[in-house]
Amino acid sequence: MSTAHTTDHDDIRRRIDNLIAAICAMNLEAVMPIYARDIVSFDFEPPLQHVGAEAKRQNWTRAFTAFEPPLHYEVRDLTITAGGDVAFVHAFARMNGTLKNGKKSGVWVRWTPCFRKIDGTWLIVHDQVSVPADIASGKALLNLEP
Amino acid sequence: MSTAHTTDHDDIRRRIDNLIAAICAMNLEAVMPIYARDIVSFDFEPPLQHVGAEAKRQNWTRAFTAFEPPLHYEVRDLTITAGGDVAFVHAFARMNGTLKNGKKSGVWVRWTPCFRKIDGTWLIVHDQVSVPADIASGKALLNLEP
Repeated sequence: MSTAHTTDHDDIRRRIDNLIAAICAMNLEAVMPIYARDIVSFDFEPPLQHVGAEAKRQNWTRAFTAFEPPLHYEVRDLTITAGGDVAFVHAFARMNGTLKNGKKSGVWVRWTPCFRKIDGTWLIVHDQVSVPADIASGKALLNLEP
Repeated sequence: MSTAHTTDHDDIRRRIDNLIAAICAMNLEAVMPIYARDIVSFDFEPPLQHVGAEAKRQNWTRAFTAFEPPLHYEVRDLTITAGGDVAFVHAFARMNGTLKNGKKSGVWVRWTPCFRKIDGTWLIVHDQVSVPADIASGKALLNLEP
């Protein structure tokens, strides 16, 4: 494994660790710097795609507004593939806490963030976040565990 | 855009065009060569992940068994990002046809295939396929359009 390769992995891992810390702190301004301005997000909730960092900011605002602090964010089975100025990551992630309505919430999602190195900084230019669907019943499967 | 860059885009586009043709022909043996042996797929249906080409083969077998020919497969808004030996793609895709039970089926999904160039050939080593979920109702949103 070349030094450049190792450094890219370390850089991306560090940026994801910062994102995880920012989510746990419910700190929107610390969450946002990982996203490219023109991100195309296939996010957990509708519509099919959310285009631009402002849409991503609104999604995180909604998430942070739904939960009472403290919020826990766990990432599992993180795999990074980087080459040149392009990288992709896949992992399982769970936002775990108590909603403002008093209910507990902790859905495991599949997360595929895709990065480009832009002016020396790895940014998420695309991501997909989802749970599997049961086509027969039309249900989103919200209680699966990795 | 460098020549190598253009060639990588063209190679990936050609492999995806071949995949689309193979799906329309319901030709499992022509579908499979695009997948790496150790693919980790966050596929449409449960579980959270499907590991290995054999699991992907079973998923396509189930899909082809469910439909009466002819099957239509449409891909829209395809975007390719390639660098070195790593690439990712995002698009909308719809398998459209009549199920063996007589019902029409045509769900638009979000598709993020992630590639590595292995021994000179671009292979999908990871993908995520999904529809958004409505968290309040627990429904998978199967009728959205791009």
